[in-house]
Amino acid sequence: MRNSAFFLLFAPAIVTLGIVATGCAPQGDVTPALEAVADPLPSWNEGTAKQSIFDFVARVSDPASPAFVPEAERIATFDNDGTLWSEQPAYFQLFFAIDRVKALAPEHPEWKTKQPFKAVLDGDMEALAAGGEHGLIEPVMATHGGMTTVEFEAIVRDWLATARHPTTDRPYTEMVYQPMLELLDYLRANGFKTFIVSGGGIEFMRPWTEEIYGIPPEQVVGSRIKTKFEMRDGVPVLVRLPEIDFIDDKESKPVGIHSHIGRRPIAAFGNSDGDLQMLQWTAAGEGPSFCLYVHHTDADREWAYDRDSHIGGLDKGLDEAAARSWTVVDMKNDWKVVYSWN
Amino acid sequence: MRNSAFFLLFAPAIVTLGIVATGCAPQGDVTPALEAVADPLPSWNEGTAKQSIFDFVARVSDPASPAFVPEAERIATFDNDGTLWSEQPAYFQLFFAIDRVKALAPEHPEWKTKQPFKAVLDGDMEALAAGGEHGLIEPVMATHGGMTTVEFEAIVRDWLATARHPTTDRPYTEMVYQPMLELLDYLRANGFKTFIVSGGGIEFMRPWTEEIYGIPPEQVVGSRIKTKFEMRDGVPVLVRLPEIDFIDDKESKPVGIHSHIGRRPIAAFGNSDGDLQMLQWTAAGEGPSFCLYVHHTDADREWAYDRDSHIGGLDKGLDEAAARSWTVVDMKNDWKVVYSWN
Repeated sequence: MRNSAFFLLFAPAIVTLGIVATGCAPQGDVTPALEAVADPLPSWNEGTAKQSIFDFVARVSDPASPAFVPEAERIATFDNDGTLWSEQPAYFQLFFAIDRVKALAPEHPEWKTKQPFKAVLDGDMEALAAGGEHGLIEPVMATHGGMTTVEFEAIVRDWLATARHPTTDRPYTEMVYQPMLELLDYLRANGFKTFIVSGGGIEFMRPWTEEIYGIPPEQVVGSRIKTKFEMRDGVPVLVRLPEIDFIDDKESKPVGIHSHIGRRPIAAFGNSDGDLQMLQWTAAGEGPSFCLYVHHTDADREWAYDRDSHIGGLDKGLDEAAARSWTVVDMKNDWKVVYSWN
Repeated sequence: MRNSAFFLLFAPAIVTLGIVATGCAPQGDVTPALEAVADPLPSWNEGTAKQSIFDFVARVSDPASPAFVPEAERIATFDNDGTLWSEQPAYFQLFFAIDRVKALAPEHPEWKTKQPFKAVLDGDMEALAAGGEHGLIEPVMATHGGMTTVEFEAIVRDWLATARHPTTDRPYTEMVYQPMLELLDYLRANGFKTFIVSGGGIEFMRPWTEEIYGIPPEQVVGSRIKTKFEMRDGVPVLVRLPEIDFIDDKESKPVGIHSHIGRRPIAAFGNSDGDLQMLQWTAAGEGPSFCLYVHHTDADREWAYDRDSHIGGLDKGLDEAAARSWTVVDMKNDWKVVYSWN
């Protein structure tokens, strides 16, 4: 339970971005010569990371390859926070929850004196942090439950349309990684079905993943609270209950993948130890597999953090990636741009 | 909980059938004249049921239609037992569980004297029925849990390859409705994404739905038991626990749809009161919707049952279908054939 509130709180948010890359990879063999003609990953610098992606896609999509994988089985799963968009200075879903507490405060005068709501309303991040992750469960449940699913979707959409990232002042939807958008397109152009498998709230992501990532709601797996079917004046609704149903993190990511997708991915992409089991599960498949970690090494254009970070910590994962020769993307050196605007 | 064992027990099973219909509907306007040229539903007799399908598909797939629905939103959900294949004289997953009890009996000498296992081993269906649905939980958990997900899939596949329906002596995979296979193909040819939403066990269906129905594992929603990620000698496995996680029936069908798919269907197909909430949820969408009940009226070619049946009972659903002008398929009169072989 310690992580529960954290992961329901923390996921994504977005708005119109309109920078979906249109890179379209040649089918079959992808050689350096062809790349020069039409590079499907123009925001990636040449190097082992980029080349490992091309090599894997060529191996599994060329019918003449001994490692060929039928299209239906080309499942690729992506973590979201820190893998497709940023997660600093805190998971973006936390900012959503804070804004919701503020918006709902007039209906809850008791919050003015009750922690951790008081800390949220006072903007006292120190007091908020002192309560630990466990202290965040109450505000999450108070702000993410109690309404219908249709109402919650509208709340997320409205928030995304106006909220701005605390340090860049950009819409959260502009905090997505341009190289990863190209990678998503490139995989789909080669017959992959792309899924999000995130610790973030599933209903916090679905309203925008199709527009921003090209990933439809049915291909989003995430943490969720319980919902209940009710008839209200003859109209069926699904009411969001203030009760955790599933936390899609660490050991639970393979569980979520199995429950939602029902087949093992052949490619998995993450950035933290919370993704390690997803990568292990993917690597343990019988056929070819590809595992990639995004390593946050760019303090200038994004953030630099790994082993000691309490958000998106990458410690065991770095060791395992080295031991198993997984691809590790050095954001500073492997990416020409991080966002579309830097 | 009363229904829990029942629905985990009861779902489908299949093997190579190879009768996937290849009917391909013309895009856009579908007029009776065109049908005569290339009828995408050749196993359906002309009539209001068939016509209502054509009319709806034309309305939502013609870009010039005021009721046009973009392809991404053309979600169609199908119940399985009694809607895509038969469910008499009992849900097919019950026969699977019974066979599993028999196969595992040598490892469980105590079952010889312990109910309801004794009844299963003695073939005493009366004693088994006397225990009610609740009495079936133990055998379900004993036969569906305790192994890895990979092992369970192999068990299901092996069983389907040899098991035969108790009255027709056909492989269970030949107990699928030919008109519904054509309908699935017809909808997909018109841009629909087809899903199963069944009370049956999700892992009992996934091994064969792609081959038989053209529905991939990630588009199957069903009841499930809990699974747990474990490392065994460095190899990750998902272990099936003898514990119910979700029962996908009645009020829970919209919950399962929302959790797995994340958008509301525009078309839903069922055959029992267990599907009523799915149809209500579908009908309550903002845009056009289509709800259809398969009514089991053919005692000669299949089975005839509705309001009083304890399997697949259709009582409230019949009333609501009449009141709301939903399509009701009279199997006897609307279908030229039921199975591919009769």
